Amino acid sequence: MSYIKEINSVQNPLVRQTLVLIEKSRERKKKGIFIIEGIKELELAIKGRYLLRTLFFYPELISKEEVLNQLKEVEDPPELVSISKEVFQKIAYRNSTGGILAIAKTKEHSLDQLKLESKNPLILVAEAPEKPGNIGALLRTADAAGLDAVIIANAKGDLYNPNIIRSSVGCLFTTNIGIGSSEEIIEYLKKNNISINCAALTASKAYTLVDFTQPTAIVVGTEATGLSEDWLQKSDQNIIIPMRGEIDSMNVSVSAAILIFEAVRQRKL
Amino acid sequence: MSYIKEINSVQNPLVRQTLVLIEKSRERKKKGIFIIEGIKELELAIKGRYLLRTLFFYPELISKEEVLNQLKEVEDPPELVSISKEVFQKIAYRNSTGGILAIAKTKEHSLDQLKLESKNPLILVAEAPEKPGNIGALLRTADAAGLDAVIIANAKGDLYNPNIIRSSVGCLFTTNIGIGSSEEIIEYLKKNNISINCAALTASKAYTLVDFTQPTAIVVGTEATGLSEDWLQKSDQNIIIPMRGEIDSMNVSVSAAILIFEAVRQRKL
Repeated sequence: MSYIKEINSVQNPLVRQTLVLIEKSRERKKKGIFIIEGIKELELAIKGRYLLRTLFFYPELISKEEVLNQLKEVEDPPELVSISKEVFQKIAYRNSTGGILAIAKTKEHSLDQLKLESKNPLILVAEAPEKPGNIGALLRTADAAGLDAVIIANAKGDLYNPNIIRSSVGCLFTTNIGIGSSEEIIEYLKKNNISINCAALTASKAYTLVDFTQPTAIVVGTEATGLSEDWLQKSDQNIIIPMRGEIDSMNVSVSAAILIFEAVRQRKL
Repeated sequence: MSYIKEINSVQNPLVRQTLVLIEKSRERKKKGIFIIEGIKELELAIKGRYLLRTLFFYPELISKEEVLNQLKEVEDPPELVSISKEVFQKIAYRNSTGGILAIAKTKEHSLDQLKLESKNPLILVAEAPEKPGNIGALLRTADAAGLDAVIIANAKGDLYNPNIIRSSVGCLFTTNIGIGSSEEIIEYLKKNNISINCAALTASKAYTLVDFTQPTAIVVGTEATGLSEDWLQKSDQNIIIPMRGEIDSMNVSVSAAILIFEAVRQRKL
């Protein structure tokens, strides 16, 4: 690992590939690789056992020794590339990330591979979330609440979107994430005896009156259209956060957090 | 009110003034006016008794009759201006707002003028919130929870920023909002016997163990730096949302919502 490549030109093919990976979801999916930016994010990716292929560092911001220190627990270390200021400014989104970017391998997120360690899991299911900022906020809430898994139904776009990584502050990498169609997920939850609780503005049961102490999935839809009929009809319980204002919606990451933390509260009693 | 002015040129002084009001906080503050875009937002501004000075409408999207219908409850109706497609496209941020923009008078938000109707108020205080999207989400949560007031301490920027109006879905106009320095607000809360509960990552008391059934202010700081010492030292109780993940923070609008809805839950019991 002592050999360190140097790249000083923004025309270098690896630099150009990196830019494409940052911008193009299709390219990430095709190649099964994506970009991690920032020290905190890299730490969490290592903790989440992501395979790193290439690690770029800008020596003015982080020394070779510090980089090697970051990688000391990594079994299969990446190729190290020292980059010039010009290259760093070209590929970095922010200057505040400590001078590190990495190319890493994406993971599979099929439901077959989703391992639930707890016998009494608490899961968040989000149907078709669109805005990267909302997905990031959901993942941060899942992290804080210690959820057993986050499952995304009918995913739009790509989980490894740089804006999702950024807005999740990297906890995308340490969260147990499943992806599938609504039908697959409903089947998965039923098979595992996990009760399906769908948030719906049309529901009549207040969330505070529901028992979340058994194996529980809390299911949220989009702000614009809510959950699809598939979910509302196959759920064990449709629940509502009673609202008393002028507008009848909250941000989806806010609603999800209220529901999740009520479940956490009940489970601690 | 039957006289309707027509503007077809983007060079018209009123159009140019509108663009400046959309972009420049300083101009809004100096003149005490701001821009409302969208039918839902206009409805809520009327409900919140904002004074409308000028109302632009684009007849391809909304007819004169519909506009007059929107204004039927308004005591002091605005000047009506029919605008061309070119002008509408120049001043509208979105096409989905129904063809309406208005110039309205800002309100005073000093604490002297803040009226608390309930004898047992529940209030949110946000110190120095920066991102318009977060402020909008806080206002939506306040609306949904039926809070008695939202008080902003040491406000950065301008409440009538179009991004705040947009992200609050207009409930900025119907929420009881106060603005002041931290010192003024602490004095106000103490004087009114409202207990000060400060969210802090350094606090030891879990929020679920706190009694929020008496007159209560929940106080949140920024994600980056949390609350200032002023607040932490003068609070009646510092509270924490216990987190068990890899990162030790949630989005500020998410944390605030968890705390507020726990207070609402307790008060309903």
